[in-house]
Amino acid sequence: MTSQTPLQIAIVPDSFKGSARASEVAGAISAGFIAAAQSKGRDIEVTAVPFADGGEGTLEALIDAWGTEAVPVDTTDAIGRPVRSRLGLSADGKIAVVEAAEAAGLPQVSDVPRRPLVATTYGLGALVVKALDLGVQQIILCLGGSATTDGGTGLLSALGAKFLDADGNELAPGGGPQNNLASIDVSGLDARAAGIKWQIACDVTNPLLGATGAAATFGPQKGASKEDVAYLDAGLGRLADVLEADTGRALREQSGMGAAGGLALSLGSYFDVDLVPGWELVAEVLDAHRILGGADLVITGEGRLDSQSLHGKVVSGVLQASGEGADVIVIAGSVSLDDETLAQSGILSAYSIAPGPATLAELSADTLKLVERTAFSVARTYLR
Amino acid sequence: MTSQTPLQIAIVPDSFKGSARASEVAGAISAGFIAAAQSKGRDIEVTAVPFADGGEGTLEALIDAWGTEAVPVDTTDAIGRPVRSRLGLSADGKIAVVEAAEAAGLPQVSDVPRRPLVATTYGLGALVVKALDLGVQQIILCLGGSATTDGGTGLLSALGAKFLDADGNELAPGGGPQNNLASIDVSGLDARAAGIKWQIACDVTNPLLGATGAAATFGPQKGASKEDVAYLDAGLGRLADVLEADTGRALREQSGMGAAGGLALSLGSYFDVDLVPGWELVAEVLDAHRILGGADLVITGEGRLDSQSLHGKVVSGVLQASGEGADVIVIAGSVSLDDETLAQSGILSAYSIAPGPATLAELSADTLKLVERTAFSVARTYLR
Repeated sequence: MTSQTPLQIAIVPDSFKGSARASEVAGAISAGFIAAAQSKGRDIEVTAVPFADGGEGTLEALIDAWGTEAVPVDTTDAIGRPVRSRLGLSADGKIAVVEAAEAAGLPQVSDVPRRPLVATTYGLGALVVKALDLGVQQIILCLGGSATTDGGTGLLSALGAKFLDADGNELAPGGGPQNNLASIDVSGLDARAAGIKWQIACDVTNPLLGATGAAATFGPQKGASKEDVAYLDAGLGRLADVLEADTGRALREQSGMGAAGGLALSLGSYFDVDLVPGWELVAEVLDAHRILGGADLVITGEGRLDSQSLHGKVVSGVLQASGEGADVIVIAGSVSLDDETLAQSGILSAYSIAPGPATLAELSADTLKLVERTAFSVARTYLR
Repeated sequence: MTSQTPLQIAIVPDSFKGSARASEVAGAISAGFIAAAQSKGRDIEVTAVPFADGGEGTLEALIDAWGTEAVPVDTTDAIGRPVRSRLGLSADGKIAVVEAAEAAGLPQVSDVPRRPLVATTYGLGALVVKALDLGVQQIILCLGGSATTDGGTGLLSALGAKFLDADGNELAPGGGPQNNLASIDVSGLDARAAGIKWQIACDVTNPLLGATGAAATFGPQKGASKEDVAYLDAGLGRLADVLEADTGRALREQSGMGAAGGLALSLGSYFDVDLVPGWELVAEVLDAHRILGGADLVITGEGRLDSQSLHGKVVSGVLQASGEGADVIVIAGSVSLDDETLAQSGILSAYSIAPGPATLAELSADTLKLVERTAFSVARTYLR
């Protein structure tokens, strides 16, 4: 064994939502593996990076990987109330990451009755403007968790666009008023936004309109009644008509355009915007393909490993990005995959951190210790 | 790999008390390993036997290993009430296994106030007599869980001995009345009991009398007050005096003689009785040393893996009996060993079957499925 190359281990977990950041989980898994290797007298090389899927926790994973702090930004939530939000900035200052949930999120407005017709992405604009002020060359916009169905008009308004009715008056915020949209004045649009690379992390394939569109699919969870859904869908259609006439870009059928209440529509009509699956975007930023490609063993993890994990989440991304011969092991807060699904997915094995009977609160309070302990036993079994 | 000997795997779990018999756990672990080996295209050879430590569950483990059914026996509990009890019989009819808890057990009399002074092992005698009637050549008597502190006089009475006071009247049952013991009439003692091999599974090292003796150490949990303890200790001392004078055997200082209320004292005074650590006795009966000695990998398990598991329990026995180069993995209902203790104990790794947040009742209801699922992932990690 002395002449062998040390086993290359990549540790790339998602966060355990509500319990631990991805970077903390990565650290705990690393500690368990390193202790196990020492206890077995084995030589291993560990590379650990926090991973994310473009959803909640992506900003934290990226700034932790970059070694930077979140930049606080005062803005407004989906219904216009002041909120302290944040953006992430890469160490070289070239990339900003912004989460829609940070300034147009549903949880932020869960203390009041939901207002799907007026919820706006305007507050998200302050984050984008801040990023532009900071001089970034690239903005990563993470969709998911939004309370809005405004086609991204709020965000574009914050960047200087004016959405006008037939009388030339500016529309009120939200998707509902867009039914009265007649024209868009982009003379004041922030020119800096055209000079950067836009990437949108998007894990759904829904088109903008219709039965599988933004309003019909995601409207109800944002509080839209059946009538609201129809009205929002019509508003988005009206918006698409006007944008298409103005810019010549036909985006309504594009896969993913229905994400986050059509958020990418306004932005994509005036700027070149890539819609990219979240884990791929994160993988690209973190150079995860290089890390994963060279690993003999990949350890990932997330709060809950279930059948959803195999579709567009960190685990599925890790499985796709890992080398042919690499083993992939999952450490999770809970595991509810049956053996057959597990084996067919390409996962070698999966372990819950639960040490016995325990409540979610008990597991959450002790997550990192339990992750490390699980990793220790998994590593000793693997390295045997 | 095609020319290699298949990996030899020994599966030797304890029961998960209150949830699953050792044989069921062994079956579930085997199923998980076999499915995992198939999924990996690996060749393994599995030998599974239910294991036990001489405590509760030993009878079930042995009859399951033997492939026999428990023999029902009507007898009485520690306070003389009728109870349907049972003994285990080997397939060839040569060995009987009897648990003290089956006819002199504390749980059986937990519905009434405890009566430490009169609790008797008399009911246990009916099980022994039944075993003798069946013509066995060996009786394995499992201590542990008894409600008695009678020095085994009840059991010996059932075999025909008479414990008499100074007036020649037979003493009432229990440890208290032994303070009036003057002589023992063994003229009616069942001669068959002298012709068999007696083995007593005993995991404690307490002597009969004094501060670490049967009454002082175990009396309180059987309901003995401080005064009761002194009275029972004196009774056991009186019994030891008379037995010693009669038989010339000085047993009071022998390690383990304080187990189960001095149960081995009366028996050991008239018959040749081996006190053997429970797991060793079970290992001998099941030829576990041969099975474990030839294994590359040993999987054991129990309901709760903690520091106690490393002392006189199945896990510690498995660790001692396994070959130098063998890996030992534990699958348990709950695991509460820290990494250092785990590694130093000689255990390769340990896993709880808990798939996430869950109550004990939920885990118990699903034990075998969870054991199999855990075994599947462990096996795939090990076989990788």
